[in-house]
Amino acid sequence: MLEELKQQVLEANLDLPRYHLVTFTWGNVSAVDRERGLLVIKPSGVSYDKMQRDDMVVVELESGKVIEGDKRPSSDTATHRALYLAWSQVGGIVHTHSRHATIWAQAGRAIPAWGTTHADDFYGEIPCTRAMRDEEIQQEYEWNTGQVIIETLAMRDIAPETIPAALVNSHGPFAWGRDAAAAVHSAVVLEEVAYMALHTQQLQVNLPPIQQSLLDLHYQRKHGKNAWYGQQ
Amino acid sequence: MLEELKQQVLEANLDLPRYHLVTFTWGNVSAVDRERGLLVIKPSGVSYDKMQRDDMVVVELESGKVIEGDKRPSSDTATHRALYLAWSQVGGIVHTHSRHATIWAQAGRAIPAWGTTHADDFYGEIPCTRAMRDEEIQQEYEWNTGQVIIETLAMRDIAPETIPAALVNSHGPFAWGRDAAAAVHSAVVLEEVAYMALHTQQLQVNLPPIQQSLLDLHYQRKHGKNAWYGQQ
Amino acid sequence: MLEELKQQVLEANLDLPRYHLVTFTWGNVSAVDRERGLLVIKPSGVSYDKMQRDDMVVVELESGKVIEGDKRPSSDTATHRALYLAWSQVGGIVHTHSRHATIWAQAGRAIPAWGTTHADDFYGEIPCTRAMRDEEIQQEYEWNTGQVIIETLAMRDIAPETIPAALVNSHGPFAWGRDAAAAVHSAVVLEEVAYMALHTQQLQVNLPPIQQSLLDLHYQRKHGKNAWYGQQ
Amino acid sequence: MLEELKQQVLEANLDLPRYHLVTFTWGNVSAVDRERGLLVIKPSGVSYDKMQRDDMVVVELESGKVIEGDKRPSSDTATHRALYLAWSQVGGIVHTHSRHATIWAQAGRAIPAWGTTHADDFYGEIPCTRAMRDEEIQQEYEWNTGQVIIETLAMRDIAPETIPAALVNSHGPFAWGRDAAAAVHSAVVLEEVAYMALHTQQLQVNLPPIQQSLLDLHYQRKHGKNAWYGQQ
Repeated sequence: MLEELKQQVLEANLDLPRYHLVTFTWGNVSAVDRERGLLVIKPSGVSYDKMQRDDMVVVELESGKVIEGDKRPSSDTATHRALYLAWSQVGGIVHTHSRHATIWAQAGRAIPAWGTTHADDFYGEIPCTRAMRDEEIQQEYEWNTGQVIIETLAMRDIAPETIPAALVNSHGPFAWGRDAAAAVHSAVVLEEVAYMALHTQQLQVNLPPIQQSLLDLHYQRKHGKNAWYGQQ
Repeated sequence: MLEELKQQVLEANLDLPRYHLVTFTWGNVSAVDRERGLLVIKPSGVSYDKMQRDDMVVVELESGKVIEGDKRPSSDTATHRALYLAWSQVGGIVHTHSRHATIWAQAGRAIPAWGTTHADDFYGEIPCTRAMRDEEIQQEYEWNTGQVIIETLAMRDIAPETIPAALVNSHGPFAWGRDAAAAVHSAVVLEEVAYMALHTQQLQVNLPPIQQSLLDLHYQRKHGKNAWYGQQ
Repeated sequence: MLEELKQQVLEANLDLPRYHLVTFTWGNVSAVDRERGLLVIKPSGVSYDKMQRDDMVVVELESGKVIEGDKRPSSDTATHRALYLAWSQVGGIVHTHSRHATIWAQAGRAIPAWGTTHADDFYGEIPCTRAMRDEEIQQEYEWNTGQVIIETLAMRDIAPETIPAALVNSHGPFAWGRDAAAAVHSAVVLEEVAYMALHTQQLQVNLPPIQQSLLDLHYQRKHGKNAWYGQQ
Repeated sequence: MLEELKQQVLEANLDLPRYHLVTFTWGNVSAVDRERGLLVIKPSGVSYDKMQRDDMVVVELESGKVIEGDKRPSSDTATHRALYLAWSQVGGIVHTHSRHATIWAQAGRAIPAWGTTHADDFYGEIPCTRAMRDEEIQQEYEWNTGQVIIETLAMRDIAPETIPAALVNSHGPFAWGRDAAAAVHSAVVLEEVAYMALHTQQLQVNLPPIQQSLLDLHYQRKHGKNAWYGQQ
């Protein structure tokens, strides 16, 4: 069942160590089958170098019930479900503790859009959530982590496809895309711009964001309706 | 004698270069056999790429006497002994000069608990010892290094299994766990959070520690009596 | 057609990931055949690990028209054309988003000539362009990116062969040389000195540039008319 | 002639990229045969991945005359000669532009002895030379580079075997040892402590040097007349 989607999710998970985004098992990728209302996600705490396609766990999107697989799904499954349920345009989600995105998350700061590397894939600053309230942490923490991400984008009027990542305060990044591979792409770019922004602010204090026309040009060139980057 | 333990200690030592925690021979892992009152430790100054199981040295826990092995044990053996004798719940110990943990140790600063990466494995800030006194250095230095670690945790009422690492002032980190592999796991996480914390404080001065409820949730999820992370 | 030049351009492009200058497809190298008025450049958005010699695209220097190749040329082709047309002594050009050069570009700062590593290949500070005007961005952006680089060197009286790189404000570096391999060499040294300069200024605020006699000695030893470095 | 020494020098040179101390050909190692008054050194500008034992160049220590080899010796040969002639206890010398040691050199600052990693191999801070005078640069630059290193140690009463490295102002590090392999060892440790010190000072301003008793203990344990570290 969902063998092709499982294969995609497996490969996307294996890309995490390849792009140096994870230590041990600190990351997980999922993808969704909207027609069947199911998601496929990495099992909890399984080492990347032993992971097989059949280790991927199939979970019912609405209920969170495990439908197939003999392993427990990622501890962050409820966060993935919350995002898929809120955002119908998203097909893949990834969570990591990648070093530099996590540093911004720990500092509780959004990553400013400071250059075209950022603008090529993120149409504006990458937001950081507010601190969660004690009751949100103590009850249904993982579900509420999703809710606070959704709230963060909603309050800033951000469409999730235009800024495909957010930082969870004191925690780390979530990123997404139209499928599992696109979500990993977002996570890699996020880590790259997090590194650059960290050091950019050491060279220039109070640097304003990239000028609007340059943000527009770079983002639209790759993602606008007349996008022409690549071979297409 | 103790062939299985030697194999575990060998593999844990070989993990140090694999996780980029050591340069040359600057690290050592040991494990203890509590019933026999013996510990197994890496030989001093032997290159990781030539190390064999039979190079591991068996040392009497109480006396420090070499029981088996034709090489000299790690120069830090007395520190390992001191910790095992004080802390009966610890089964493996590792010492490295991993870059970022050492940077905090050199600065004489504890690593604040600033995010969930930290909270997943350390239930609070990772302490740094006071400077050692001249007489502690000039006589039984390695043994006293252990004593000052023990004192540091005791004065802060820290149970060593809840914060499985400490920084020795002007020197570097020691980490531990229920066995040699768990000790290396602690050392890897320590290095990761040391890197992140170093840069987090560049983004946010006077950042308070992670909120208590979030520290509790993450630590208990992996290490509490109702822990449910992983496949278990 | 131009098989040898295509091979050189392919190899120079493959050097970008080898020297850790690119993530994904974020870089491109070209070379020019002055007699025929043609340039050879990497195709847009093609993965480095699948790139073949015949993927290289041949473009008419004056018009930008694709002469040979079934793929679209790099999105930055017009920038390359502008530089080749302005600077007849340049034979190869490279663009990357290499981390530390990009950090200086994002900060809008020139990289000071602070040591002999810099002086060996760059005869003075590596300039950063002014911000582009909205109309320069909205119309013929890639061509205008080339123009602003040319203007930047011209206003500082820099001969492009003496300082073979520039930073495009809010964007990233372009580097060049007598051929594709020399351009990549410039890009590697640029990234190296960008890293060093970033951290040098943390150790010494208001550091003056390298003394003139030392800049002269090192630059001339490798690039002057009596250069004697290497085997030659 | 000197085949064994050539082999040692070749292997020490090949260790430079292995320990990530060089980019391109920016480093060189030599060793000396005191009885014959000859040194063996890497050829200038030859790529590490093509270097063979017979590429090593034999040079007369006193005169600098090439005695054997069909390639030109390293451009820094005169610096090596100056140091060997001044310091009879030194048997191997290495020069690199390793990133973090070079950063301190560019900043014109000595690397403070801030921890036991430093104390294990350097008995005090690693000095940085004064800026060279224009006439020292314009005439016999490489020879004078050696002289300024010698002057720097002499003025501080440093025996070169106790602090086996120095930073040349605005340039980069030289390191040495009893033979070529020991010189490379010094260069690796130097780079390691340079990295750590750079970040240590970010965590603690005005940090005093390591306490004398700890410096003594660590240095003597490995290098004193009663040294007992390793298998010996």
